[in-house]
Amino acid sequence: MADGEKHVYEFGARTDGDAKMRELLGGKGANLAEMSRIGLPVPPGFTITTAVCAKFTAEGGKLPDEAENQKNAALANVEKQVGRKFGDGRNPLLFSVRSGARDSMPGMMDTILNLGLNDETVKGLAEATHNPRFAYDSYRRFIQMYGDVVMEVHAKDEHSQDPFEEILSAAKKSAGVQFDNQLSDSQLKAVIEKYKELIAKETGKTFPQDVHQQLLGAIGAVFKSWNNQRAILYRRKYGIPSEWGTAVNVQSMVFGNMGSDCATGVAFTRDPASGENVFYGEYLIDAQGEDVVAGIRTPNPIAQLEKDMPKVYGELVAVREKLESHFHDMQDFEFTVQQNKLYMLQTRNGKRTGFAAVRIAVEMEREGLIDKKTALSRIAADSISSLLVPIFDGDGKKKAKVIARGLPAGPGAASGKVCFSAARAEEVHGRGERALLCRAETSPEDIRGMLAAEGILTSRGGVSSHAALVARQMGKVCIVGAAALEMDYGSRTMRVGDVVIREGDEISIDGTAGEVYLGSLATVPSEVNQVLNGTLKADRSPIYAMYAELMSWCDEFRKLKVYLNADSPSQARAGLLYGGEGIGLTRTEHMFFEGTRIDHMREMILADTVADRERALAKLLPMQREDFIGIFTAMDGRHTTVRFLDPPLHEFVPHDEATQRDLSKKTAIPFERIVARVEALREFNPMLGHRGCRLGISYPEVSRMQARAVFEAVVHCKKKGIDVHPHIMIPLVGFVKELRNQVDIVNEVAEAVRRESKSDFTYYVGTMLEIPRACLRAGEIAKIAQFCSFGSNDLTQTTLAISRDDMGSFLGRYTELEIFAKNPFATIDEEGVGELMRIAVERARKTRSDIVLGICGEHGGDPASVKFAHAIGLTYVSCSPNRVPVAKLAAAQAALEAKK
Amino acid sequence: MADGEKHVYEFGARTDGDAKMRELLGGKGANLAEMSRIGLPVPPGFTITTAVCAKFTAEGGKLPDEAENQKNAALANVEKQVGRKFGDGRNPLLFSVRSGARDSMPGMMDTILNLGLNDETVKGLAEATHNPRFAYDSYRRFIQMYGDVVMEVHAKDEHSQDPFEEILSAAKKSAGVQFDNQLSDSQLKAVIEKYKELIAKETGKTFPQDVHQQLLGAIGAVFKSWNNQRAILYRRKYGIPSEWGTAVNVQSMVFGNMGSDCATGVAFTRDPASGENVFYGEYLIDAQGEDVVAGIRTPNPIAQLEKDMPKVYGELVAVREKLESHFHDMQDFEFTVQQNKLYMLQTRNGKRTGFAAVRIAVEMEREGLIDKKTALSRIAADSISSLLVPIFDGDGKKKAKVIARGLPAGPGAASGKVCFSAARAEEVHGRGERALLCRAETSPEDIRGMLAAEGILTSRGGVSSHAALVARQMGKVCIVGAAALEMDYGSRTMRVGDVVIREGDEISIDGTAGEVYLGSLATVPSEVNQVLNGTLKADRSPIYAMYAELMSWCDEFRKLKVYLNADSPSQARAGLLYGGEGIGLTRTEHMFFEGTRIDHMREMILADTVADRERALAKLLPMQREDFIGIFTAMDGRHTTVRFLDPPLHEFVPHDEATQRDLSKKTAIPFERIVARVEALREFNPMLGHRGCRLGISYPEVSRMQARAVFEAVVHCKKKGIDVHPHIMIPLVGFVKELRNQVDIVNEVAEAVRRESKSDFTYYVGTMLEIPRACLRAGEIAKIAQFCSFGSNDLTQTTLAISRDDMGSFLGRYTELEIFAKNPFATIDEEGVGELMRIAVERARKTRSDIVLGICGEHGGDPASVKFAHAIGLTYVSCSPNRVPVAKLAAAQAALEAKK
Repeated sequence: MADGEKHVYEFGARTDGDAKMRELLGGKGANLAEMSRIGLPVPPGFTITTAVCAKFTAEGGKLPDEAENQKNAALANVEKQVGRKFGDGRNPLLFSVRSGARDSMPGMMDTILNLGLNDETVKGLAEATHNPRFAYDSYRRFIQMYGDVVMEVHAKDEHSQDPFEEILSAAKKSAGVQFDNQLSDSQLKAVIEKYKELIAKETGKTFPQDVHQQLLGAIGAVFKSWNNQRAILYRRKYGIPSEWGTAVNVQSMVFGNMGSDCATGVAFTRDPASGENVFYGEYLIDAQGEDVVAGIRTPNPIAQLEKDMPKVYGELVAVREKLESHFHDMQDFEFTVQQNKLYMLQTRNGKRTGFAAVRIAVEMEREGLIDKKTALSRIAADSISSLLVPIFDGDGKKKAKVIARGLPAGPGAASGKVCFSAARAEEVHGRGERALLCRAETSPEDIRGMLAAEGILTSRGGVSSHAALVARQMGKVCIVGAAALEMDYGSRTMRVGDVVIREGDEISIDGTAGEVYLGSLATVPSEVNQVLNGTLKADRSPIYAMYAELMSWCDEFRKLKVYLNADSPSQARAGLLYGGEGIGLTRTEHMFFEGTRIDHMREMILADTVADRERALAKLLPMQREDFIGIFTAMDGRHTTVRFLDPPLHEFVPHDEATQRDLSKKTAIPFERIVARVEALREFNPMLGHRGCRLGISYPEVSRMQARAVFEAVVHCKKKGIDVHPHIMIPLVGFVKELRNQVDIVNEVAEAVRRESKSDFTYYVGTMLEIPRACLRAGEIAKIAQFCSFGSNDLTQTTLAISRDDMGSFLGRYTELEIFAKNPFATIDEEGVGELMRIAVERARKTRSDIVLGICGEHGGDPASVKFAHAIGLTYVSCSPNRVPVAKLAAAQAALEAKK
Repeated sequence: MADGEKHVYEFGARTDGDAKMRELLGGKGANLAEMSRIGLPVPPGFTITTAVCAKFTAEGGKLPDEAENQKNAALANVEKQVGRKFGDGRNPLLFSVRSGARDSMPGMMDTILNLGLNDETVKGLAEATHNPRFAYDSYRRFIQMYGDVVMEVHAKDEHSQDPFEEILSAAKKSAGVQFDNQLSDSQLKAVIEKYKELIAKETGKTFPQDVHQQLLGAIGAVFKSWNNQRAILYRRKYGIPSEWGTAVNVQSMVFGNMGSDCATGVAFTRDPASGENVFYGEYLIDAQGEDVVAGIRTPNPIAQLEKDMPKVYGELVAVREKLESHFHDMQDFEFTVQQNKLYMLQTRNGKRTGFAAVRIAVEMEREGLIDKKTALSRIAADSISSLLVPIFDGDGKKKAKVIARGLPAGPGAASGKVCFSAARAEEVHGRGERALLCRAETSPEDIRGMLAAEGILTSRGGVSSHAALVARQMGKVCIVGAAALEMDYGSRTMRVGDVVIREGDEISIDGTAGEVYLGSLATVPSEVNQVLNGTLKADRSPIYAMYAELMSWCDEFRKLKVYLNADSPSQARAGLLYGGEGIGLTRTEHMFFEGTRIDHMREMILADTVADRERALAKLLPMQREDFIGIFTAMDGRHTTVRFLDPPLHEFVPHDEATQRDLSKKTAIPFERIVARVEALREFNPMLGHRGCRLGISYPEVSRMQARAVFEAVVHCKKKGIDVHPHIMIPLVGFVKELRNQVDIVNEVAEAVRRESKSDFTYYVGTMLEIPRACLRAGEIAKIAQFCSFGSNDLTQTTLAISRDDMGSFLGRYTELEIFAKNPFATIDEEGVGELMRIAVERARKTRSDIVLGICGEHGGDPASVKFAHAIGLTYVSCSPNRVPVAKLAAAQAALEAKK
């Protein structure tokens, strides 16, 4: 660490940082600085930078000397500002210590409040506030947090209670009270002693009385929490590099729990679930912040604060407006009211559901708060899917019974089996069934279960509870605070009046309306889809209007064309409704499985001679021609790419005796020969076997039939006035001579069809780039290929030498060890596969500067991969029809990011 | 074709070309020019360049205008020199037309002699030579060749006779004579008429009388013959690119068949089979060149010419010396004596057996004719193997019966089943059995059968017969002219006196001694191996002396180190005898299959828990440690690389019920669990599955055991005074974090063993580069890896997406279509796999300029791949022990070629 580097940044009356410094200060620290700058009431404190995080670990869990010195200096400045001393026996200064990474990771890392209390300072606090109950409650809370976070005294497992809570519950029970704040100071003192005994017993160490030791312990715990299991899991899900690290924010404490003129709350400048432009939030009187977030006490809606604390409410409404006009984005902020004075503890861009993201972006643009480009950048491309997912059928909902209502915290419709624990939800999901996670409240331990579940339902907590926050970010359907439900984990049931729901029963939740139904409800297409397919008028759907406006912006900015992977006319039509501009991939083999075709296909495969094979192919020809006529007609002149036969023949032949005997009857091929041929087709590594163009080279008559079907369909369509210029794509080319061979066949057949039909037409022949060798030889291939499309699935399998079908056996371990930054079959492995793609693009364009290059395969609908496609200069991406809007949005974002 | 380009080069009194122009003029054309230059008696003529070959095809089978003009001008010059006119009715100039590629392709392409004869000029020739029989015999031969080569009148199949020969045989029969030259001119005239009728009937065209049309037809036929089946097959075998093309040599005819003062012959400046420094060759009196080569009449040995034509013989001996002193290499030359005057028709570097190549090179160096570097460059690296192959056991030979003797034309020992046709030899070979092709003589149609056979035996023809030539080049064991054998294809037998040998019977041939034996004889190690293993004294073996001298030259020039792929102490010792300098690859998994180890291995695989796995591994540890002690001891301090477990676990478990039940008994693991586990281990694409470092990452205890075995063996050896610095190699790394994970384990275990043993040692950890991604990330990998070895087998499979185990289904077709220049699993695919290797080397060296880089896998013993390894700057190649001499020679040649 270089001498003189700044490791500690102050905020409050003296502020060193600002909102732009989130990489160094973390989101929380940067925004505390920014709020200080714009005059909002922020309790003073300081931020230890993210750069210290790795150093802290590297130095074996201690602050580098220079950081230590800067921390002490900043601490002295805070003492000066608030006029109190840290560790002062009379009127002590207390601190909160919180994590703060570059991107918010809600609830993932640890926080410690009331730091600075010990057996002496607690007395000073009691005297200074004239409120011993408050002082001892604060001390009790501090020991509990510190014991948990720093000294690692936890619940034994997910079924047992937190040992501190156990002591507290017992104290409340013996005192005959319901809430924490009903315990007297002497009762609290007894709890405190029991807490200390617990810590001593569990850890063999005493709870530290030295406040500086407390502070160092807390700072260390926050840095360490960057690498706890929850945080790692979270980073993996959201693709956050572990190198970023977290900052630590040390802030002077203010108290929302000093009495009934105190409160604490969380608010959003707009509704984070629906995106509606309303002031949204919740608070608790006489409470500390974590009481709201933890969801243990259900807080009051923010509107009620107007009655409880009219002055503070007025100030908060002004803060809301100042925040939006300053940050130009929906803010999620925390506040505390101490003795009727408002303090701002945090603000950040609010997490929102995908649905809300779209609505907020579109509406802020309409309000003139942001421009179109900014609006586009605000919407995670995936989240547009939330406008397209099915919703519950209105008629079905009418007939079904609403058994409970809660706060809508994640819009959408979800049905599934009730699961009362994360483990059970994972288990049900693992069996391929749909799970609904139902909990009184959720905690970070439930993350895996939440990921596995279709939806989340809680009986406690508000819209800023853990469940709501996480569901929002994961895009899960969610209802929180459905208070009518009584959860009983012991009997694995929940009750609403007479209705008893057992674990495994099916229920449905409408996260848009906040309604819980018995049974599995039928769904209908989303409003957007209803408009697109003509069953709903556009002017009756504001959701469709948003969608259409957003898409028009995408079309304005994006450079990439978005094509479809479509194997049938109906898929093609569906994709066109979503704005697909052509077809990037038609897998002709999918056509061979339908109806009686499979028999002819099998006859062809089983043929011993070219003549027999040609006889079978002659039967397939008219069928395949019809397929192409259907697709060309649906596409009506748009770019259409047809890929020739790709999979190994083994996939087409029957493997069970009954079907083999049946086939023998149908084709008059002896049963034994069928068995022998099926056996001969078996391969050790079919992925690397006799497939792709290798088939068309071994059996040129197959390629001839396919070419003929394409061209005859073209001639047919041209007669009907449809102008088709087909793109024929040869799969699995590795050697340029393979392509030459197939292109020659295609050209020959084209000439023949031209002659026979006395009709002219244009067409293009290109290839897949899906083998490393093809990428390396792209310069040579481009001499022949008129276009190329990256087959990123196969290219990933070969470049990484990983079979997607077999990776299950080590994927878990690899994910755990973070060997893959992201699943390479979901998002392009830019460093490996992407590097080959870059080489291929460069070499192909050197040969033919205007060559059309695209990507088909599942990466074509993945936002990060679409952005990569833009970055390396591809012409198009091709994806499944329902991913077209996502791809378009990602393409527009890529174009905008590139401009910067 | 650019204007003014020179397409035609003259030779004779006026000579345009020289020996250096073989790319343009072909080998024959360039050497005709060179011989003219040094004053040898060459009949004048001209060469149409190889550059015209492709143009000729491209222009639909005609000469480009400019070439046509240049040809006519050159023709006029030849007419002037010899004082006769082409097509002159009185004393006509005749031409031979021959192909001539850059590299000699003996017998592969077509030749036409006596061109320029027609119904008129034949009369002129008869008058000018006063020899009508000769003139009509020449015309007869010309029509026969022209009919065959240009007009394509051939035998129907391999069993039927040539139709021209049929007419000729009938004529001889009816005339009651045995030889062609016994037919009278009028009998020949009748044959000529029948030939013309045959051509008219078979082709519907008349034999052309216009001599210029004849010449164009012949030139076209030669160009076309470049792409006939035989030529393509030949090029494929020898890796000659089809782009090279052939030149056409048009040369004025001289006649060896004008009477008893005429002769034609073929000679070698040294013995091409044994390499001995003797004048070697054969001739026929009153014959044309093809009579010698075709092997129909068995020619006389060259020594006999001293009696037949003493003056000419003296001239020939002088020519022999002039050729060797000028070309500094063994020459294979053709000559014709016309009326006691010697003419040189061709010279070229003589094809030789691998054995002869070594002997000639070493002896020429000893004679001071060439230097060591040149000597090294003369020996195809593979051919050194011919000094290492087994020979027949002397005792066995003594007991066996020699049934016939012939000319030794390909040294070595071969046994196999007698096959009387190429097809039968291919069939026997295809069944995995050894075939010996036995023919009266061979022709280009037999090439495939010769390739399939272990050895070739003919009853006719001399050492320059087709069989001898081809066998020499293929490195096949061969005996020609074993005249005692009477072949009878009809009854599929051959006889020697009373002995009848049927097709399918086993015989043995000693191609060094020229002896044929009944039955299959036992073999013993080669002389070189006998010396190496101490059963023969070095000073009793001149062959060993050559071998040792050659190897010492290799060691002087090569830059690449040559390491061994050795999995056991005995393999290691064998490799050291051949001069291996270290071990580049020890496959530790091979050790797990032996004896009871496989049971412990299976127990480990079937374990459900880490503890169970560790228990099984604990049993394997001492065994593996012993393995390493054995290898380290054998290597005695030399570089030794140990690769950790690589293959998928499925390869270790039993797949048949009996063994599974047995294993259940041995391990007390329930049978059902074994079955289930075996099933679970099955993979769709095991090549891309759970193997390599993925195993060590999933089961770190396996890597720990292997590391411990290595280090404990090191400690053990050090105590015995053997200094070991093991290189541990992690397989199948694609992501740098994989390597990091395994290196951490290795380092941890090393620390532990150091502590426990209180002993220090050094070691290196590196990785295989065998996945495309690893090559691309080599820069990053080199930060951790202390060395890298290309696993070119797997790298080829992944880069080409071709499973070696499955490629059989399309390899034939691909070879036929020349999609692969060479089998990529035998010789590195430089354009694809090699490109990735180049990238990897560059990136790895950028990170760590002195990093040790090697290649292991079968390419490490392939000469072309070794040269590639040198070219990209690798540190070593590693190959199986018996390929070490080949690799060393190739490495030396690479170093010498690079210097040029």
